Amino acid sequence: MHFEETMKSRTALCEEVLRAYLPQADVCAQTLVEAAEYSLMAGGKRLRPLLMETTGRMYGGREELRRPFMAALEMIHTYSLVHDDLPCMDNDEYRRGRKTTHIVYGEGMAVLTGDALLNAAVETALTAFDEVRDSRENAAVIASLRLLMKNAGLQGMIGGQCADLEAEDRPGDVTARTLYYIHRHKTACMIESAFQIGAILAGAPEEDVEALGRIAECTGVAFQIRDDILDVTGDSRELGKTVGSDERDGKTTYVTMHGLDKARRDTEALSEEAMDLLGGLDGVKDREEQAFLMTLVDSLVQRTH
Amino acid sequence: MHFEETMKSRTALCEEVLRAYLPQADVCAQTLVEAAEYSLMAGGKRLRPLLMETTGRMYGGREELRRPFMAALEMIHTYSLVHDDLPCMDNDEYRRGRKTTHIVYGEGMAVLTGDALLNAAVETALTAFDEVRDSRENAAVIASLRLLMKNAGLQGMIGGQCADLEAEDRPGDVTARTLYYIHRHKTACMIESAFQIGAILAGAPEEDVEALGRIAECTGVAFQIRDDILDVTGDSRELGKTVGSDERDGKTTYVTMHGLDKARRDTEALSEEAMDLLGGLDGVKDREEQAFLMTLVDSLVQRTH
Repeated sequence: MHFEETMKSRTALCEEVLRAYLPQADVCAQTLVEAAEYSLMAGGKRLRPLLMETTGRMYGGREELRRPFMAALEMIHTYSLVHDDLPCMDNDEYRRGRKTTHIVYGEGMAVLTGDALLNAAVETALTAFDEVRDSRENAAVIASLRLLMKNAGLQGMIGGQCADLEAEDRPGDVTARTLYYIHRHKTACMIESAFQIGAILAGAPEEDVEALGRIAECTGVAFQIRDDILDVTGDSRELGKTVGSDERDGKTTYVTMHGLDKARRDTEALSEEAMDLLGGLDGVKDREEQAFLMTLVDSLVQRTH
Repeated sequence: MHFEETMKSRTALCEEVLRAYLPQADVCAQTLVEAAEYSLMAGGKRLRPLLMETTGRMYGGREELRRPFMAALEMIHTYSLVHDDLPCMDNDEYRRGRKTTHIVYGEGMAVLTGDALLNAAVETALTAFDEVRDSRENAAVIASLRLLMKNAGLQGMIGGQCADLEAEDRPGDVTARTLYYIHRHKTACMIESAFQIGAILAGAPEEDVEALGRIAECTGVAFQIRDDILDVTGDSRELGKTVGSDERDGKTTYVTMHGLDKARRDTEALSEEAMDLLGGLDGVKDREEQAFLMTLVDSLVQRTH
């Protein structure tokens, strides 16, 4: 499997899946439908559905069962970005070179767009029940729904955002534990959903699902530390954002807390652990997909932009 | 059954159910847990869970299956109020005599609190699967989840809020159809969830579930028209808000559009239709609960505050 080509065709597949599940509504709510589509179809790496697709294929899962969850996961990711960009949060006017949702549609409509996307994510994931063929699949869809919502909620992504918001107000109070909590919950939890739901729906063995949880944690946290490292050492043009912005904003990052050397060593260690675990998965049915996933995870933690 | 007493004990039951499902999280996200509890435990009539409880009892449903949905519905209602009160939406500083969530916790945290409550609502509703005993109940929980999310989303409450937000910006463009859409979607859809989910979980006949949908529409829309009437004719002290505020704000209401007489006649007609349908339900198992529900619905559309 050629890595770059597979990435390209698989990203295109994710776009197609997302487009198939775009929210619909009565003409009276058309502005919101438009704003939801504007926010969802803004490009991006589609990393989360892509990881879910790959894990699902690795265990020979049925795509009919997986597709609603791929779209749902990306909708949840997108709603969190729409709300994160609001003036009362990060106050960003641009994302990936396009105006953010509240700049185009107004703040009130952007709040509603985020709400609508989270709600639509659940509606979309629930359509997976239409594809269920037996009690094993019924149980897998229920388990996947619970995991999706747990990782997106107070014990997952939203919890991480709360800690992040408080850390910005009181950077002096941020401990190593809080910083790990933020990285783990803001980013790793959604990666966990991608890996574990892909596997659960496919009927992967429990030990593999558990290992994939830890792989997701390592990958997500390493990805975030890498982000902090790039803010210091990266190339502004490649990154698409100003280098050194974290330090100027007085933000506590893995690098300002632990120094560049330790940050690099820890990324390395997390990356190695993820690779070892990925290589040791027992129930894998498609070895080519496993190799692709290893290259993909490696590229995420070694990325230069 | 003594109406006032039953109302009191049943509201207390709803409070208890809600308290049992209060969101929890790691210590790093404690502010959000607090803000969610502050928003949820702000009193209020608990009308939606109360209606669900009553409909469920009317058909002899099991409370274990219903309780998660009662809490979920109230969480969804609460999140919509938290977001609605934001400065970029209705900009309200007080609700039921207490400071609104964003006044106490800040705007960013209020956005996250709403998100957390919607997410927690789904997590809570999903726990109903733990109580499922057979395939009938499994299917009923799935149907209830889908209905809950549809009525809360773009094709329900959020759709109504979008139309409402646009109507405020362009009051001159509001047609009778848009106004009905807003009343129907902002209010009636959530009442529909209360009635229909209570019945579906209890295994009520399909015709009754369908009739309850129309009863909910009549009740919800009449309730909203009544609100518009009270804004003109009500007693400020009883209402707890300034009379005539809609007209001063240049807001299009059922009364400004159709006049007081037609508004009253339409409430009457909707109320009668709801009563007729309620009286004609076929599968009711508990006639006392049916009588209580009729008095309750009547009190909602005839209310003076």
